[in-house]
Amino acid sequence: MSASPSATSRVSVPGASAYPHRGADALVMVTRNGEPLAEREVVVAQRRHRFLFGCIGFEFIPLANGEPYGTARAGDDLDPVRNLSDAEVAQVAELWFELFNFVTLPFYWQRFEPVRGRPDTERVRTAARWFADRGCTVKGHPLAWHTLAPDWLLELPNDEVARLQVERIRREVSGFAGLIDMWDVINEVVIMPIFAKYDNALTRLCREIGRIPLVRMVVDAAREANPHATLLLNDFDMSAAYECLIEGLLEAGVRIDALGLQSHMHQGYWGEERTLETIERFARYGLPIHFTETTLVSGHLMPPEIEDLNDYQIPEWPSTPEGEERQADELVRHYRTLLSHPSVEAMTYWGFVDGGWLGAPGGFVRTDGTPKPAYEAVRSLIKGEWWLPPTTVRTDADGRIRVAGMLGEYAVTAGDRTATFTLDEPGETKLEVAL
Amino acid sequence: MSASPSATSRVSVPGASAYPHRGADALVMVTRNGEPLAEREVVVAQRRHRFLFGCIGFEFIPLANGEPYGTARAGDDLDPVRNLSDAEVAQVAELWFELFNFVTLPFYWQRFEPVRGRPDTERVRTAARWFADRGCTVKGHPLAWHTLAPDWLLELPNDEVARLQVERIRREVSGFAGLIDMWDVINEVVIMPIFAKYDNALTRLCREIGRIPLVRMVVDAAREANPHATLLLNDFDMSAAYECLIEGLLEAGVRIDALGLQSHMHQGYWGEERTLETIERFARYGLPIHFTETTLVSGHLMPPEIEDLNDYQIPEWPSTPEGEERQADELVRHYRTLLSHPSVEAMTYWGFVDGGWLGAPGGFVRTDGTPKPAYEAVRSLIKGEWWLPPTTVRTDADGRIRVAGMLGEYAVTAGDRTATFTLDEPGETKLEVAL
Repeated sequence: MSASPSATSRVSVPGASAYPHRGADALVMVTRNGEPLAEREVVVAQRRHRFLFGCIGFEFIPLANGEPYGTARAGDDLDPVRNLSDAEVAQVAELWFELFNFVTLPFYWQRFEPVRGRPDTERVRTAARWFADRGCTVKGHPLAWHTLAPDWLLELPNDEVARLQVERIRREVSGFAGLIDMWDVINEVVIMPIFAKYDNALTRLCREIGRIPLVRMVVDAAREANPHATLLLNDFDMSAAYECLIEGLLEAGVRIDALGLQSHMHQGYWGEERTLETIERFARYGLPIHFTETTLVSGHLMPPEIEDLNDYQIPEWPSTPEGEERQADELVRHYRTLLSHPSVEAMTYWGFVDGGWLGAPGGFVRTDGTPKPAYEAVRSLIKGEWWLPPTTVRTDADGRIRVAGMLGEYAVTAGDRTATFTLDEPGETKLEVAL
Repeated sequence: MSASPSATSRVSVPGASAYPHRGADALVMVTRNGEPLAEREVVVAQRRHRFLFGCIGFEFIPLANGEPYGTARAGDDLDPVRNLSDAEVAQVAELWFELFNFVTLPFYWQRFEPVRGRPDTERVRTAARWFADRGCTVKGHPLAWHTLAPDWLLELPNDEVARLQVERIRREVSGFAGLIDMWDVINEVVIMPIFAKYDNALTRLCREIGRIPLVRMVVDAAREANPHATLLLNDFDMSAAYECLIEGLLEAGVRIDALGLQSHMHQGYWGEERTLETIERFARYGLPIHFTETTLVSGHLMPPEIEDLNDYQIPEWPSTPEGEERQADELVRHYRTLLSHPSVEAMTYWGFVDGGWLGAPGGFVRTDGTPKPAYEAVRSLIKGEWWLPPTTVRTDADGRIRVAGMLGEYAVTAGDRTATFTLDEPGETKLEVAL
């Protein structure tokens, strides 16, 4: 009837073509008052990635709550920003939001409810809302774990521990529903019943009732409390043990929505081959894969003979110029590898600022708040190579433009009107956007 | 009415008292023609241990079949006796029978049926009968395994592989029922779907259908073919992976009769602590535990960096005097440790003569057929410390004697008459034996 599609102007993200399963090519008809907005200049801009580029946000909880950061800090969560002023923390947060659309907030039971019956709900809720208001998907981590289980559970019998664990899950999952709809429900089940570093009630319970009944119990509780939530199993054990656990759970009919794979690489980057081999082994189950805890250090590597990373605690673990270049290179390779596999839907980096878990220089930002090469390198992917910046294009005689980019949310602006559309299926598609 | 029990004479095995869960203290009334055989000297002797002291018997298949042993041999199974004459092999067999009451015979599918449709059934049946006639419980190993799966399976589609695997199991298990009522049904499932050393049909099938459905399929086939058989799962992976597999199978309702734990210790004796910790982890499931494949070498240890023992192949692996002393000591400690835990019901040693699997000096006997210190040390347990030799004792006025010893089979002889009885429950008990 009029101009052929090939004559329609096109905006595109060249970097998206490397990931056909993550990109769409949409013929978008722009309308106003039901009529095609023909032959008009419009501005198209990406708003958000569908892929969940994530990071923990533990250290921003005081900022979100308007609490002053003192100069003396205590506790792992705030260690990374212990040298920064309130204004500097706020600046670091701005750097954070430039990269990420997905945050993990801490629900370690021992810290969340140090005194039985007095959970730290409101501060965490305020932080969750703060992140959500800034466009982030929020995940809670974790609801059940042997590490950081409250000591006050220890004196209770196992059936009471189980009851309280279920109650705690119901309380958090229903209380945060709508704000947090994604949970690492249970953490590190592979070693849970044989964890021997210290007594804790979850190991005792898991040893008695078995891994599968325990996972079923906690997942059922979370599902009932929020049927719309995405529920994850999360583990650091990438061996056949995790495969066997998953196969047992699936055979037993326990419904898991996504598999969380930790990938703390304090002992060195896995490399593309091992990363893809690992993804392949877990992709077999047909479930989305989330890389839930990724770390790459910009200092010396942890010695290979350390089996439990927690056993390596040193007074100073400096970031070095060579280490920072290596980290930047490895992070770029790691993001590319993860995006290359269709099963991977999320990646959470474990610590934006150096000096977090184990005091490692694993951040995108140094302890003085300045960004490292890794920050710029990853930004050049997430907000560069894979991103459509505001781009002016002219609609055709039928009001159409073509938009080819990564799956995600986009905006079209003409004059003072803006409307958004979503590319949510890979491949060619047609859309209509009413301004 | 007559003499009190304390006046009754007692024969006992002092070494049994260390293992109360493995010993019985029986008040045995000896009768003849329905009357107590009072005030008579009788001889009591142990015939058999209830504990399954086992070893593979692969190298005796030609002997059992009356086939001559040539001087030039080929194939792993006969390598240990390649330097021995037929008479020497027969002597070695006598040493074997002095120790063991339990034999494992090979059913590796690739060797058992190298040409499809031509299984080596009769030779193995003759060997099984030869061992059974000499008082041994016979186990077949294994019915399903990725290693030594026939190459001719590779060209078939997975559903056909599954069908043939089930048929092969039915054929062997029903064909040998009554003679072999114990099977390592499936071997090394933990790594089966991710085994990457070479292509094989079982890995391919397991990867497609999953570990639990595959185990269910083979166990169901074996159970149906012989409802009285003891069916084992067998694995070398002693990590949480095997635990997770077992928990998944039990949750899925797959009935396993005993858990097989391999324990090839080419890289060094585990020691009591690790052995008991391992047993404890697997005893949790309430199933009997069989140590299915134990090896301790009397030469240098395999280097610790070797991950797959099969990767260590050297031209000569000599037995040394110091190594032989160490091996004897470790074997005694290992047997004591296994017997100390009530869940362990069997131990199979993997190779009676040096030069078997991997060419290792892991035997009780050297390649020249002479027994090593380990042989004498273990005999002093099995047929010494834990054994009741023929012992004369006088019945009391009610024809009674007390027999305290390890669970197992015993004989009472008076004059030319002999009858047997069995101690099959630990603790105090009463029995009547009719001569």
